[in-house]
Amino acid sequence: MRVIRTVKQMQKIARSLQRAGKSIGLVPTMGALHEGHVSLIRACRKDNDKTIVSIFVNPIQFGPSEDFKRYPRPISQDESVCKKCGVDLVFHPGAGEMYPEGFKTYIDVQEMGAQLCGASRKGHFRGVTTVVAKLFNACMPDRAYFGQKDAQQALIIRRMVKDLNIPVAVKVMPIVREKGGLAISSRNAYLNERRKEDARVISQSLQLARRLIKKGVRDPGSIIWKMTALIESKKQAKIDYISIVDTDHLKPVKKISGDCLVAVAVWFGNTRLIDNMVIKL
Amino acid sequence: MRVIRTVKQMQKIARSLQRAGKSIGLVPTMGALHEGHVSLIRACRKDNDKTIVSIFVNPIQFGPSEDFKRYPRPISQDESVCKKCGVDLVFHPGAGEMYPEGFKTYIDVQEMGAQLCGASRKGHFRGVTTVVAKLFNACMPDRAYFGQKDAQQALIIRRMVKDLNIPVAVKVMPIVREKGGLAISSRNAYLNERRKEDARVISQSLQLARRLIKKGVRDPGSIIWKMTALIESKKQAKIDYISIVDTDHLKPVKKISGDCLVAVAVWFGNTRLIDNMVIKL
Repeated sequence: MRVIRTVKQMQKIARSLQRAGKSIGLVPTMGALHEGHVSLIRACRKDNDKTIVSIFVNPIQFGPSEDFKRYPRPISQDESVCKKCGVDLVFHPGAGEMYPEGFKTYIDVQEMGAQLCGASRKGHFRGVTTVVAKLFNACMPDRAYFGQKDAQQALIIRRMVKDLNIPVAVKVMPIVREKGGLAISSRNAYLNERRKEDARVISQSLQLARRLIKKGVRDPGSIIWKMTALIESKKQAKIDYISIVDTDHLKPVKKISGDCLVAVAVWFGNTRLIDNMVIKL
Repeated sequence: MRVIRTVKQMQKIARSLQRAGKSIGLVPTMGALHEGHVSLIRACRKDNDKTIVSIFVNPIQFGPSEDFKRYPRPISQDESVCKKCGVDLVFHPGAGEMYPEGFKTYIDVQEMGAQLCGASRKGHFRGVTTVVAKLFNACMPDRAYFGQKDAQQALIIRRMVKDLNIPVAVKVMPIVREKGGLAISSRNAYLNERRKEDARVISQSLQLARRLIKKGVRDPGSIIWKMTALIESKKQAKIDYISIVDTDHLKPVKKISGDCLVAVAVWFGNTRLIDNMVIKL
């Protein structure tokens, strides 16, 4: 397994793989690899001749008061995870390599980045789309793998890829959960055991939403009200948002009449956790 | 020579050229091909195995009160120019193919698009960078050719390509001029012979600037003042801007102390003409 640190070197390798007729899969990550990432790597290896994992904690998708500095960076552990999983190449550039002086180009997917996580994380999705386009141009994959846990991110990236004719197939893989239901996330590392147990209430609230919808409840308001009550039964929990939106445009639905996405963001202390569930009617 | 109308088909051909080890050159145009374009096509053919000319009048780079509707579209003439020049592929998509319903992704190079032409053409460069990225993704060129006449455009595209790690070499070719000095432009078609003669004053003003600078004048204000007087000697001329800027960032220089770009935009009736000259010290 090779670790590549410059865009130029990465492009050179990608081009020569392309020329040799090899298919390339990319799993873009911010490191702190967990079972969720491993599931992406497995899918990637199954579909492609060569698997690249990019590890880059992207400064421009963090707000000034967010956790960029304390975001976990266990790089040697990450590299051994990659090695164990049969990854061919790790692309691990520094911030100066990705954003040299004078950088001033951003990709913006309008509207879709304003609600849900975008409402409390101004500029976040612009940072995500910009870095993803850069990683695509560096690694030149045929396919790229993202987690459904970041549902809004996945939809926005799909939109960007379609709108800009980027020749990459976007694959979105299911959420991986711990035994108690907590969605696996690099940010779970911020939680102690007690908090982790409390945080199970997030996925429980999504299960509750599903039960209600399956039972015939069609009014998002009453579902959100019950989810709120459940989550707030944990004293430490502070809800950022609970939204029931359509799966194409992420716009809040007034009455549930087809498939919908129930999405939740909750603060536990300084840690913001997100989760979601697609509910098919 | 094949004419391709869909992104999908274009990408398929480009991929197979890549796999066959052929280098691809792209000349992005809005059609109404003239000697300027022909010089780009010649350079492109010299450098690459295959030459693609894209013809697309890009709606999103025109303001609501601009000349999108009346912009010349002599497509069959354009195709025969391409054929005569030995172009391999013409990529000629429709607006619905490039901007299907729901399109909402834009690429913005900050600051560099605000001054010069950007000041009077809000959103113009955002439209240019977005369509150029799309054309790059559709045609997958190794090299792309632009004219120095659109100096600001060329610099902004270079910046985008660098910032987003787009694996395309940007080549900028010299301005081609008519005998009297008028820079060749598709928009010259809007001018009658009388106006065309008047419009020569634009390139004459650039020559004047060069003479003054070569003589030792270092104050941009006095140069611009003399250029203004010369251009305004033509009654029909209405100056949009005359600027003397540095060649890297297009910021106005206070005192000429190195290479600079003298850039001019002038209205003749409803027709806006631009021209520029790099003056080396």
